[in-house]
Amino acid sequence: MGDARRYCALPSPFPMKRGGTLHGARVAYETWGTLNAARDNAIVVLTGLSPSAHMLSSAADPTPGWWEGMAGPGKAIDTDRWFVVCVNSLGSDKGSTCPASINPATGKPYRLEFPELSLEDVANAAHEVVRQLGIGRLACLVGCSMGGMAALAYMLLHPGTVRAHVSVDTAPQAQPFAIAIRSLQREAIRLDPNWAGGNYDIHAHDCSGEGGRYPDMGMSIARKLGVITYRSAMEWNGRFARIRLDAEQREEHPFGFEFQVESYLEGHARRFVRSFDPNSYLYLSRASDWFDTAEYGHGSVMEGLKRICVERALVIGVSTDILFPLEQQEQIAAGLQAAGASVEFVALDSPQGHDAFLVDIENYSRAIGGFLGKL
Amino acid sequence: MGDARRYCALPSPFPMKRGGTLHGARVAYETWGTLNAARDNAIVVLTGLSPSAHMLSSAADPTPGWWEGMAGPGKAIDTDRWFVVCVNSLGSDKGSTCPASINPATGKPYRLEFPELSLEDVANAAHEVVRQLGIGRLACLVGCSMGGMAALAYMLLHPGTVRAHVSVDTAPQAQPFAIAIRSLQREAIRLDPNWAGGNYDIHAHDCSGEGGRYPDMGMSIARKLGVITYRSAMEWNGRFARIRLDAEQREEHPFGFEFQVESYLEGHARRFVRSFDPNSYLYLSRASDWFDTAEYGHGSVMEGLKRICVERALVIGVSTDILFPLEQQEQIAAGLQAAGASVEFVALDSPQGHDAFLVDIENYSRAIGGFLGKL
Repeated sequence: MGDARRYCALPSPFPMKRGGTLHGARVAYETWGTLNAARDNAIVVLTGLSPSAHMLSSAADPTPGWWEGMAGPGKAIDTDRWFVVCVNSLGSDKGSTCPASINPATGKPYRLEFPELSLEDVANAAHEVVRQLGIGRLACLVGCSMGGMAALAYMLLHPGTVRAHVSVDTAPQAQPFAIAIRSLQREAIRLDPNWAGGNYDIHAHDCSGEGGRYPDMGMSIARKLGVITYRSAMEWNGRFARIRLDAEQREEHPFGFEFQVESYLEGHARRFVRSFDPNSYLYLSRASDWFDTAEYGHGSVMEGLKRICVERALVIGVSTDILFPLEQQEQIAAGLQAAGASVEFVALDSPQGHDAFLVDIENYSRAIGGFLGKL
Repeated sequence: MGDARRYCALPSPFPMKRGGTLHGARVAYETWGTLNAARDNAIVVLTGLSPSAHMLSSAADPTPGWWEGMAGPGKAIDTDRWFVVCVNSLGSDKGSTCPASINPATGKPYRLEFPELSLEDVANAAHEVVRQLGIGRLACLVGCSMGGMAALAYMLLHPGTVRAHVSVDTAPQAQPFAIAIRSLQREAIRLDPNWAGGNYDIHAHDCSGEGGRYPDMGMSIARKLGVITYRSAMEWNGRFARIRLDAEQREEHPFGFEFQVESYLEGHARRFVRSFDPNSYLYLSRASDWFDTAEYGHGSVMEGLKRICVERALVIGVSTDILFPLEQQEQIAAGLQAAGASVEFVALDSPQGHDAFLVDIENYSRAIGGFLGKL
């Protein structure tokens, strides 16, 4: 955590969509650029499941952000022009109130006493940040992956507060393939004996060591399954093919890793396992499964989307995404268009799959920079 | 096991490709139809990772087989005309010698003392069945999924012993996406504390109960991940959409199943977990990762395939298969064609993904029946 992180205290009690309330809750956020006098140059970015609000480096926190190439002075999201706010999701452990936070009613971490979390709650918390910053209407709301679903919720719940929308690699509802993947990720964590019904050693999280009772195994499997579905077979054919590890990189034990692709997954898992609170992961993952714009349209995704009112929208997807397939972005584009927005739809052929928005900065920059330049 | 199962004793010692030998080993098989006097009407079928040799019901074993609709009197693989042999893979626990079998050198199960298994060993064992049946040349060798890779090995290792070939939903080498999936399946089993380095309670396998030390968790995760990759997102959109379980079907515990797709996966896992020996699963899974026709072509898949000599071939694949993508079947077709075979290539649009060959019997029957009818 750098000094760039700010906190927004949520109204207390903060009501949750599916019941229950939070008391004394907060969300973390970071900002770049300057809000102008008219307060009409604000862009909010809602993130995927695991990133923090640290989207960009800054003087206060020079570590590279998760979308470093996308924004900054003169970049696609130009911080010389826009006041950019990235909000850490409610329920994420990167500074916002989450299942690992202390429940003021008990003085102990919430764990599974945390109320059921929906992406509507994530959206409402982000909207509270915007409100407290004194911004009545966003110039643009950007949502990536899970954050794209939260952005749709934001626009449905707070009509008239968003002028333009950028939808990146996301979906208007969770489909069964994505539900199956996320359900299996959650199951790997839940079945890990060290998850212990959510009562693992919370201090073991964010440790670089390996001490404490902690569901390393479940988190590792969940992360590897995530990475498999975030990338694409096509990319890996070119990148890893059937290249073997050198003898000294291999593991001694039976059925140990032999191919580079296995070692790549292991590296991803090792970096993730102790850097994300497992209960928070479960809550955010389930929130993604629950999300469905059809709830706002009497059972129809298209009718739900038609209730969203923005002037302009850019919808981007990638043909190699198996988790949020291109048809779902086409649906969003069609729905927003039917709602009266002027919509640009960009289908990219980036080989990196769902993660392309984090990797193929060139093509995503061109689309997003071009769109924002016309606002 | 019905009375239909037969056993073929392998030569002892039976040398394995990667080193080591088996003593007193056997493979299980079943047959349907009658071998004619010329001994030229034999079709051998090599299976995917988990099926037994019980491809079809018969008087001796009337339980439905795993490819029941595909073969039989008057069916695509017509048992009135053909003598059909289905071989259980060496290393599979459905009657063939496998890691759960007794090692004659110790009087105890092999477990991880079983020698490293390759699909070439599976192919050699199947060839031994054919040899002992007194068949010099197969009318046709059919291979599905993993069995398709074993069939390529069979033809590479035993040139001149196969007249025609049917390749179903398979690949000329394991690509990194498939390796990643299988590696994660193996890891889920290996990380299960009850796998115990392969020393789980072998008698717990094939029990309908839940007793004994057994890696139920790892096997369940492995199977669910398998089913996710064997089917397709498209099929599930139509089949499950976002349909919820009834309240009484839901689980009480936190993060329990809520959607039908989750319950579907759970049903698949429950049927599988105790019906396949975990160590055998690990061995066969790794054998699939290792398989690569490029080993026979100085590093080139195409050159390897060009060493296969058959008169005719039918290569079938399905556009929704993410585990063995259509490009890999195109490669097989191109390679066999370059080798001089007369090749039919059939690309189906069945929505069922890799498993289409087990489900879309109508389209697969038409292709396979048409091909065999012309032999």
